[in-house]
Amino acid sequence: MVMPMPEETAQKTIENVTVRGGGLIGASWAALFLGQGYRVTVQDIACGFEARVAAELRRVWPDLVSLGLASGRPPFDQLRFDRDTARACEGADFVQECGPDRIEIKQAMVAEAEAGLRADVVIASSTSSLMASDIQAGAQNPGRILVAHPFNPPHLMPLVELVAGQKTLPAAMQVARAFYEGMNKQVITVQKEVVGHIANRLGSAVFREAVHMVAEGIASVADIDSAMAHGPGLRWALMGPFHTYHLGGGAGGFAHYIQHLGPTQAARWQELGNPALDAETVAKLIAGVEEAIKADSGSLQEKRDRGLLALLALKEEIGLAR
Amino acid sequence: MVMPMPEETAQKTIENVTVRGGGLIGASWAALFLGQGYRVTVQDIACGFEARVAAELRRVWPDLVSLGLASGRPPFDQLRFDRDTARACEGADFVQECGPDRIEIKQAMVAEAEAGLRADVVIASSTSSLMASDIQAGAQNPGRILVAHPFNPPHLMPLVELVAGQKTLPAAMQVARAFYEGMNKQVITVQKEVVGHIANRLGSAVFREAVHMVAEGIASVADIDSAMAHGPGLRWALMGPFHTYHLGGGAGGFAHYIQHLGPTQAARWQELGNPALDAETVAKLIAGVEEAIKADSGSLQEKRDRGLLALLALKEEIGLAR
Repeated sequence: MVMPMPEETAQKTIENVTVRGGGLIGASWAALFLGQGYRVTVQDIACGFEARVAAELRRVWPDLVSLGLASGRPPFDQLRFDRDTARACEGADFVQECGPDRIEIKQAMVAEAEAGLRADVVIASSTSSLMASDIQAGAQNPGRILVAHPFNPPHLMPLVELVAGQKTLPAAMQVARAFYEGMNKQVITVQKEVVGHIANRLGSAVFREAVHMVAEGIASVADIDSAMAHGPGLRWALMGPFHTYHLGGGAGGFAHYIQHLGPTQAARWQELGNPALDAETVAKLIAGVEEAIKADSGSLQEKRDRGLLALLALKEEIGLAR
Repeated sequence: MVMPMPEETAQKTIENVTVRGGGLIGASWAALFLGQGYRVTVQDIACGFEARVAAELRRVWPDLVSLGLASGRPPFDQLRFDRDTARACEGADFVQECGPDRIEIKQAMVAEAEAGLRADVVIASSTSSLMASDIQAGAQNPGRILVAHPFNPPHLMPLVELVAGQKTLPAAMQVARAFYEGMNKQVITVQKEVVGHIANRLGSAVFREAVHMVAEGIASVADIDSAMAHGPGLRWALMGPFHTYHLGGGAGGFAHYIQHLGPTQAARWQELGNPALDAETVAKLIAGVEEAIKADSGSLQEKRDRGLLALLALKEEIGLAR
């Protein structure tokens, strides 16, 4: 009989987290990890990355506090910088990799990290476009390598997409899941390695049709954005497409919906476009966006960030945060 | 020189609104129109529709009040029912058509309505799948007929998609736009008559890829819904895809984004799926939704409606409601 590990011990196994890459994604992860009480080492070789990470930490800290993911002031005494990957990985209990999305860089990073890491420590890559199987090729311990793709910015957005490579061990997936769930993340598992994981495929599907409609003169950039933010986007912030259609099916739920409106949907799929991003279309899109943002007042970025924070708090309150 | 109409006169031209069809869409529109101070006649021939419309009015009134779109108690003295279309249209200043989405029914409705209507009164169809050009075929005054497609439920969702048919007069489009904007709707114009207008095409694009991922075993229904609601959906509730990528482009905005990441997007488009809704796939989807909703607690519908109200209030507050 296998005895479950006592919870306290299991939670204590990760104390030191190394973040590889001190860009925006790395700094955002580092802030969240610090907020959650981990000791964090950020590794990079870019000139002045230490100051930029520290500045980002100060900037996002109040948001982490308002989400209940941090408290007090940024614990700079728990943050360490290192320019050497192997040294940055010594003593680490978890590695979050946030380097440039090029396979040769990822593989070199793995080799360097493994020189300093204990054999059982998970290396989770934030990559949005590479495959775990490729990143783990050539590793000493490929079983500990996986993809944990956050949605930008990681400290704010709840989604983390886990993808195992061909050699990733189930235990590594479990450790990663528990790690992120422990900081209130929505962890989902991509069952097959595909381009764009899950969320970015949904994004690409929307963008393709949006580009098609502009290219074909069906609607302006401004009106397409308006349609999303005042129509389906409002629902999708609360629940995904299947839940939405489940409610749309009334008492009969999704089964009723798909049996009655499935054929209409399938017919509509055949009408969707497959645009090319040629020079003419790109010019049309850029002009359209320039026109659309003329109507905006104030800082969009600020409104968006404020909106996201309030939306996350709202979902927590109405019980849609899980 | 054309003198602009004095604003007060322009606003006063619509006093009586006839809603054709007392189903959920019609009842929702009727509630909003009553909340906005119009006298409303609802026409239907379904047995007991009067009681159902009245019940729906009572049910949604508090939400209208909380959105500032109504006040006090439902003004039942301003609401009239009629089973005859021509009679229901006598004295109307605007007609919102919400009958079944079948072209022969729409055309018959137009013929009946025109028997009672003044020649200049707009007939706006709520259709989600038919073309204004087809609805206006055979009309005495086709120039006043257009599509004004709401997002369900119309009293709550801000989006209204206007589509002109080949014979629709610009003046009719202007009247409709002013009418809906006067009740705080986000009015957009579809420039070409296409299946699904704009918003439902975005919805179809998402659903197609979601179905593909379930069919191919890339992800579970639950995880796809989770990806949406904890990832891109959060952003799309605040701003559409172009605005989102504009922010994603940093200081260089959308032009920077599309020049650097456009090729990645276009490459991803080629990876998106084109599933068939065959019996096997439908069974997989239904089983997936059943599994997914097991994890839900409480009334989804209630949470969604509460969430929508709060989200609309939130967007108003941060200046993203327009």
